[in-house]
Amino acid sequence: MTSVTVIGASGYIGSEILRLLVNHPRIEEIIPVSRSLAGKNVVSYLTHLRGFIDHKLKFQNMHFEKIDTDFLFVAAPPGKWIESIPSILDRGTRVISMGGKFRIKNPDIDKKLYPDYDNKSLLNEAVYGLPELYRKEIKKARFIANPGCYTTSIIPAIAPLSEFKSNLDLKSIVITSISGSSGAGIKLSKFLHHPNVSGNIRPYNILYHRHTPEMEFILSQHFNSELRISFTPSVGDYSRGILSYISIFTKKEIKSDIIKHFQRYYKREPFIRILSSDKDNIPNLKDVVNTNFCDIGVNYDRTRKRILLLSALDNLIKGGSGTAVQNMNIMLGVDERLGLNIIALSP
Amino acid sequence: MTSVTVIGASGYIGSEILRLLVNHPRIEEIIPVSRSLAGKNVVSYLTHLRGFIDHKLKFQNMHFEKIDTDFLFVAAPPGKWIESIPSILDRGTRVISMGGKFRIKNPDIDKKLYPDYDNKSLLNEAVYGLPELYRKEIKKARFIANPGCYTTSIIPAIAPLSEFKSNLDLKSIVITSISGSSGAGIKLSKFLHHPNVSGNIRPYNILYHRHTPEMEFILSQHFNSELRISFTPSVGDYSRGILSYISIFTKKEIKSDIIKHFQRYYKREPFIRILSSDKDNIPNLKDVVNTNFCDIGVNYDRTRKRILLLSALDNLIKGGSGTAVQNMNIMLGVDERLGLNIIALSP
Amino acid sequence: MTSVTVIGASGYIGSEILRLLVNHPRIEEIIPVSRSLAGKNVVSYLTHLRGFIDHKLKFQNMHFEKIDTDFLFVAAPPGKWIESIPSILDRGTRVISMGGKFRIKNPDIDKKLYPDYDNKSLLNEAVYGLPELYRKEIKKARFIANPGCYTTSIIPAIAPLSEFKSNLDLKSIVITSISGSSGAGIKLSKFLHHPNVSGNIRPYNILYHRHTPEMEFILSQHFNSELRISFTPSVGDYSRGILSYISIFTKKEIKSDIIKHFQRYYKREPFIRILSSDKDNIPNLKDVVNTNFCDIGVNYDRTRKRILLLSALDNLIKGGSGTAVQNMNIMLGVDERLGLNIIALSP
Amino acid sequence: MTSVTVIGASGYIGSEILRLLVNHPRIEEIIPVSRSLAGKNVVSYLTHLRGFIDHKLKFQNMHFEKIDTDFLFVAAPPGKWIESIPSILDRGTRVISMGGKFRIKNPDIDKKLYPDYDNKSLLNEAVYGLPELYRKEIKKARFIANPGCYTTSIIPAIAPLSEFKSNLDLKSIVITSISGSSGAGIKLSKFLHHPNVSGNIRPYNILYHRHTPEMEFILSQHFNSELRISFTPSVGDYSRGILSYISIFTKKEIKSDIIKHFQRYYKREPFIRILSSDKDNIPNLKDVVNTNFCDIGVNYDRTRKRILLLSALDNLIKGGSGTAVQNMNIMLGVDERLGLNIIALSP
Repeated sequence: MTSVTVIGASGYIGSEILRLLVNHPRIEEIIPVSRSLAGKNVVSYLTHLRGFIDHKLKFQNMHFEKIDTDFLFVAAPPGKWIESIPSILDRGTRVISMGGKFRIKNPDIDKKLYPDYDNKSLLNEAVYGLPELYRKEIKKARFIANPGCYTTSIIPAIAPLSEFKSNLDLKSIVITSISGSSGAGIKLSKFLHHPNVSGNIRPYNILYHRHTPEMEFILSQHFNSELRISFTPSVGDYSRGILSYISIFTKKEIKSDIIKHFQRYYKREPFIRILSSDKDNIPNLKDVVNTNFCDIGVNYDRTRKRILLLSALDNLIKGGSGTAVQNMNIMLGVDERLGLNIIALSP
Repeated sequence: MTSVTVIGASGYIGSEILRLLVNHPRIEEIIPVSRSLAGKNVVSYLTHLRGFIDHKLKFQNMHFEKIDTDFLFVAAPPGKWIESIPSILDRGTRVISMGGKFRIKNPDIDKKLYPDYDNKSLLNEAVYGLPELYRKEIKKARFIANPGCYTTSIIPAIAPLSEFKSNLDLKSIVITSISGSSGAGIKLSKFLHHPNVSGNIRPYNILYHRHTPEMEFILSQHFNSELRISFTPSVGDYSRGILSYISIFTKKEIKSDIIKHFQRYYKREPFIRILSSDKDNIPNLKDVVNTNFCDIGVNYDRTRKRILLLSALDNLIKGGSGTAVQNMNIMLGVDERLGLNIIALSP
Repeated sequence: MTSVTVIGASGYIGSEILRLLVNHPRIEEIIPVSRSLAGKNVVSYLTHLRGFIDHKLKFQNMHFEKIDTDFLFVAAPPGKWIESIPSILDRGTRVISMGGKFRIKNPDIDKKLYPDYDNKSLLNEAVYGLPELYRKEIKKARFIANPGCYTTSIIPAIAPLSEFKSNLDLKSIVITSISGSSGAGIKLSKFLHHPNVSGNIRPYNILYHRHTPEMEFILSQHFNSELRISFTPSVGDYSRGILSYISIFTKKEIKSDIIKHFQRYYKREPFIRILSSDKDNIPNLKDVVNTNFCDIGVNYDRTRKRILLLSALDNLIKGGSGTAVQNMNIMLGVDERLGLNIIALSP
Repeated sequence: MTSVTVIGASGYIGSEILRLLVNHPRIEEIIPVSRSLAGKNVVSYLTHLRGFIDHKLKFQNMHFEKIDTDFLFVAAPPGKWIESIPSILDRGTRVISMGGKFRIKNPDIDKKLYPDYDNKSLLNEAVYGLPELYRKEIKKARFIANPGCYTTSIIPAIAPLSEFKSNLDLKSIVITSISGSSGAGIKLSKFLHHPNVSGNIRPYNILYHRHTPEMEFILSQHFNSELRISFTPSVGDYSRGILSYISIFTKKEIKSDIIKHFQRYYKREPFIRILSSDKDNIPNLKDVVNTNFCDIGVNYDRTRKRILLLSALDNLIKGGSGTAVQNMNIMLGVDERLGLNIIALSP
């Protein structure tokens, strides 16, 4: 049986990790850490966990020197905790970091995006935690940099096209993503004040979002060729889920059946579902909210020479907590689906 | 292991029963029946079930004479199927009916509300499937009339007050309930056309709803005294969940601690959570959506002599499919929570 | 032509006053005051006003000694400004205060609800700005205490029943109101963080809200008899509008046609619309959002001895800014509808 | 003074035309036509018009031979009415058609898109009713083909770029548009059943929508060069408004200030607002809903060689009824803004 510590357990990603672990058959002990709520009962704040967690369990303070659980999930911005990671790793705890730092194994980019708490050896050790691309490395890793929510909806949708890279214009990829408001986190802001989002759709960071270099870096490695992505995120008037519209132009027609290629590519993946209808392939966001699935609709408009990939996932689960638990399962060598067999609500 | 047939499996309640059973550890065989979709693949319509159900499984036509599963769930309006129930019961299949007919064991009221397909012997045999009040009877039953969604949010909230019935004005109970739009079903209507609900809140059946006699009948039996309920339902701009505001006036002050009384009353119930804070007790709809819980906040305004009960549940689960599965578990003699250990999303 | 100053012009109520005045044919000069945004361009913050207001107009600081416009609207919490009101009034400026203080002409209640900046002579002079009840007094007033948003949806719905007061149980009135989130104001809060409201309905101040004594006070005067109101407000997942469900029990049947009575009662009111259908009378919130109307549906369930009044308005217009402008029109002696001839969107 | 007939007055576009005309200072007589509601009171169905229209006014049946008003608005699908238009025009009635037919002055495309009720002479006479591009022609026209809702959000955003056409890749334009559900019309459909849209975002017609050839045709004429547009529409979980994300790549850097160019281009347009901030330019959908404005944010990412235009309007007003009224004003030779001075709600 397995023990875990969750730092940032009162935030949106952290509390979702708790929720998944509470029903995970291999988890025996969960230590929830929250600086702001240390000493308070977990179920007084995460009221949806009443009945699933000891009602006296309290949020803990951070005591890095004491962490000796099998796993540590960190759902917190870069901070002093980074300095403690090497010794935690050396004590045998495997660490899954949910934040943006350490995702891009290029010290210059990493430092530019996240200037504080730089740590080259950790960056060197970090494995990018996208199971669909790095399962083998994850299995052996001690330190995982879990991918971003937008990137998790986008990289798996584009990756199979590497097969056709010579047919594609890799420099004019256009992506529009609409995210539920929970993706912007628990911190109050005018942007997320309910009257400002209700009946609205709100683009933000339209010319530059930190997930852009992340997806460009990972995909350029995977394609062994530089990709340039014009990415525009927005917040929609709903709490959960990301729908990404990905347009890629072909320079030369692809003759083979792209959908079948995607299906073969992912035929062993438990959490990627490639749609396949006679007509167009449009994922339904509701089919993935509250699940660890990423549903991908592959469409090819030969007239306009555009491939349109529509990709949907739950920003907090497959886009965060669920992939983290999937990574833990891989590292434990157990069935990847443990604790993640959740079916979406309909409607 | 157990086999089930689900009639009306393509509707909102029926498909939720499928969803719950698919992950139920005791269910071995599920036969989904849908007159309108007979012959079609289930996962082509219930796309959220992809990966959880054989992708070649097809909706079946109704062949009542062939039904020999351990359980039959009927999520369909009154119809010819009612005539087949007696022989199905005699073959050993236990039946859980989701519709309104047979809930009120008074032939005159039952006939007035649902005039067609009258059947006195079935009405006589029917057990009202609210586990919190009728567990003992359910255990032995062959034929269950599963309660309505509004009533399931209301009866358990009022039932514990029978202890104080002499203090209460039972003739001027006021209930306002706001339901997610899924409660109104899958049938298209102008009332549920999205532009008419978006940014809106829509009362309907404001002076008379079929659930009113149901809750009055069951509660009057339970109180051994006549209750008169003024009930006004509405549809809110969300898909799932019911929040009920229940006001009951006291004729004489209740001196004891009502909240503690509710807690004792339900201390063994796995799916009733009585809130208990220092201040007011307000359930969060999000804590119950996608679960089988009914969360109840008990508030007593001694100045204005009003007890305000706030009760929240998921209209399709605890208000339908979940209670049905809970009843099946009771009838099977297994842990009531099997297949129902689902935690709500947050946020 | 008329000049006005608006204090709190960057808040939700204040900016709606601006919006209405900008299109008002009698208004010549508007001075927008905002402490937090003083010196900033109005249209940089109230971007919806671009094209309707001089794009160089700036928010002003508060200089009470300099105010010499015909009218002053104050949309701000109680503060030092109260001390300046008497001399402003003496200089000939008429004042319309949007806040709760001074609404209840009982010094004890007023002080209890709003302890700071007490001022008995202002309280004495204040006229409660509900045109439907106090038009004559408003006409002659210098200082108006504009009513609350919930109260404006409730008092006009109950007032006509004073005719039948001997038939009514005035001590067990139950009101549930669902408000758009804009009613809770521009201030950030966890309660109004979008992920917490999306797909939800959130009761608050369930046993005590400051509008309760306001409606009880005004209605008790109007009925010449004490009313006791059990009022429970909630925030719904939309930005604008209040729908109030008002239940009043009869002690003795009312024989006359209540709907006709309401229609006669309000036949000269430009902004009260009494519904009148053959069946039940349910206002559509969408018919009043963005208007100065209050739509009232009168329903009488003789079986259960309940009158159910459903009342709908826009919380920021009829529930605030619109009534304030209507009051200004009355004080100016012009057509009450000037600047308020706005029709609701549909759908 | 002016008289008008509105065919399809009970639909979403038709009833918005009524709403605008009711408050239009030059309109004296409105004849609402609705085949399905002929003989019924208008305010019984368009309840938001109570108080603004004679409460006894009835929907009329279609009698084409009798139409003798100054203007005829047709908000109806292609039908037999088309055959009557020539004689109506000859009697002196000017006609504004809201449907898709006659927008593209290429008989082959027009016939392919709308095969029935073909009429070459009408097509020849039709003027595309986008005031920003065709004001001069509209002024003299007898027959207007009013543009589509998506196209009205897109053409004015792209048109000013014709200045830089040699710098642009006109063959890989990518557009994602999110529309309120009212854009899909009043007809019931599974797609617009509230539970299916609530908390969701729903792409449709992802590879081919009839507005694509419309925008390609008009823009190609305007650019005097062929444009190829990959357009993907979606319905969002709100009733009103379209936000379009338009990506155009540059082949050669544009050195001049694009935003200033847009501002000059539209400096005389009463209903186009070009945003201009120091940072990025993101229109707020709420600033245009319920108005006749189209707000355009111009952004240029020189690194990724992408121009990102964000364009927002109200799909039923600027995207339909408002432009139609604007066209009528132009044809009447009066101030274009008459009846259209509506300010958006905020928030």
